[in-house]
Amino acid sequence: MQIAIPLFDRFAALDAVGPHQVLTHLPGAKIIYCSERAGDVCDDSRSLTIVAEAAYADVPHPDVILVPGGPGQADHMTPGPLQDWLIQADRTTTWTTSVCTGALILAAAGLLDGREATTYWLAMDELRRLGARPRRERYVFDGKYVTAAGVSAGIDMALALAANIAGVETAKQIQLGIEYDPQPPFNAGAEASAPAEAVSALRAASRFAAAEA
Amino acid sequence: MQIAIPLFDRFAALDAVGPHQVLTHLPGAKIIYCSERAGDVCDDSRSLTIVAEAAYADVPHPDVILVPGGPGQADHMTPGPLQDWLIQADRTTTWTTSVCTGALILAAAGLLDGREATTYWLAMDELRRLGARPRRERYVFDGKYVTAAGVSAGIDMALALAANIAGVETAKQIQLGIEYDPQPPFNAGAEASAPAEAVSALRAASRFAAAEA
Repeated sequence: MQIAIPLFDRFAALDAVGPHQVLTHLPGAKIIYCSERAGDVCDDSRSLTIVAEAAYADVPHPDVILVPGGPGQADHMTPGPLQDWLIQADRTTTWTTSVCTGALILAAAGLLDGREATTYWLAMDELRRLGARPRRERYVFDGKYVTAAGVSAGIDMALALAANIAGVETAKQIQLGIEYDPQPPFNAGAEASAPAEAVSALRAASRFAAAEA
Repeated sequence: MQIAIPLFDRFAALDAVGPHQVLTHLPGAKIIYCSERAGDVCDDSRSLTIVAEAAYADVPHPDVILVPGGPGQADHMTPGPLQDWLIQADRTTTWTTSVCTGALILAAAGLLDGREATTYWLAMDELRRLGARPRRERYVFDGKYVTAAGVSAGIDMALALAANIAGVETAKQIQLGIEYDPQPPFNAGAEASAPAEAVSALRAASRFAAAEA
């Protein structure tokens, strides 16, 4: 089972590496990081560089695609190497998935038209504009398309995906293996639970326009 | 504020990248991945390579050290480049931290002698043998030494550390920024909650000997 994770300049590292740490434990799974060209790809912090071992052209028929988000997503919203590859490769995938604003790239490529999907909490309106039916869930399954909410949600989505691929017992063993028994010190990870000041600050800094009231 | 994350062959990627995604948002923070030599370092899945931009010698006085774990930890339990660097650099850190079996490296370097600490659930006895006082907590603060439980626990620890460094409000804003509102599909992330079969399977495959009864 080949799992392709496309990387682009200014991706969000945890979007990719959270699911990686889950899916790599699936029996027979082989994760391949790919990009427009094989080589170094830098995340949005500019301090983390992951090596893409393959170019998109080298990975024509992955079983699973997982598209991360991050600020660099904005550079891939029109036809180009990433979208072209996604559209072609999606034809033969078993699962096509995304984390965070990776869903916007899938949607821009036309792969989420009319489908239920989720994305980063500040990008819901943008996802709707791109033709999907946004849902505020931690992750959403719609056929073979699976989308996760922001950044850390990829871990939850990957466990649910692992259960679909290899069964619940395998998924639970993976969860224990990565000791995923989350105990955040604060309850501030969603718009509804975070302090109003945090919501306002992130909304003000957002690159996504809110829908008109 | 310089945050050094040492990498070694067969580290566990999420141990490093979970905290990375939190700490990179601290005001003034600069994360530096380092290793014995600058260059590519491959994780334990053999499919993820992160570039260490610096050698240990290039990062003599980081403010924060974060040591990941993973199977490669076993190669760094005796005096050598990583331990030598840790012992020297620790003298001037504000915080010296670890995720998962990274605590065993800190302990082997003598930095956790008599201190309360935690590690991966299967490595608690090993941590005791190395002179620390193990606690089964998600993360443990003992002075400037902060240790996290297995793999995914680094995210929780990093948020607590962020609050100590920059205040609770900043930490909460980071939590919202990475939408860390965990909703695992299963409740199997700890020895106490996982199915007995999963516990047995991981225990049987463990490289750590259990304490005698």
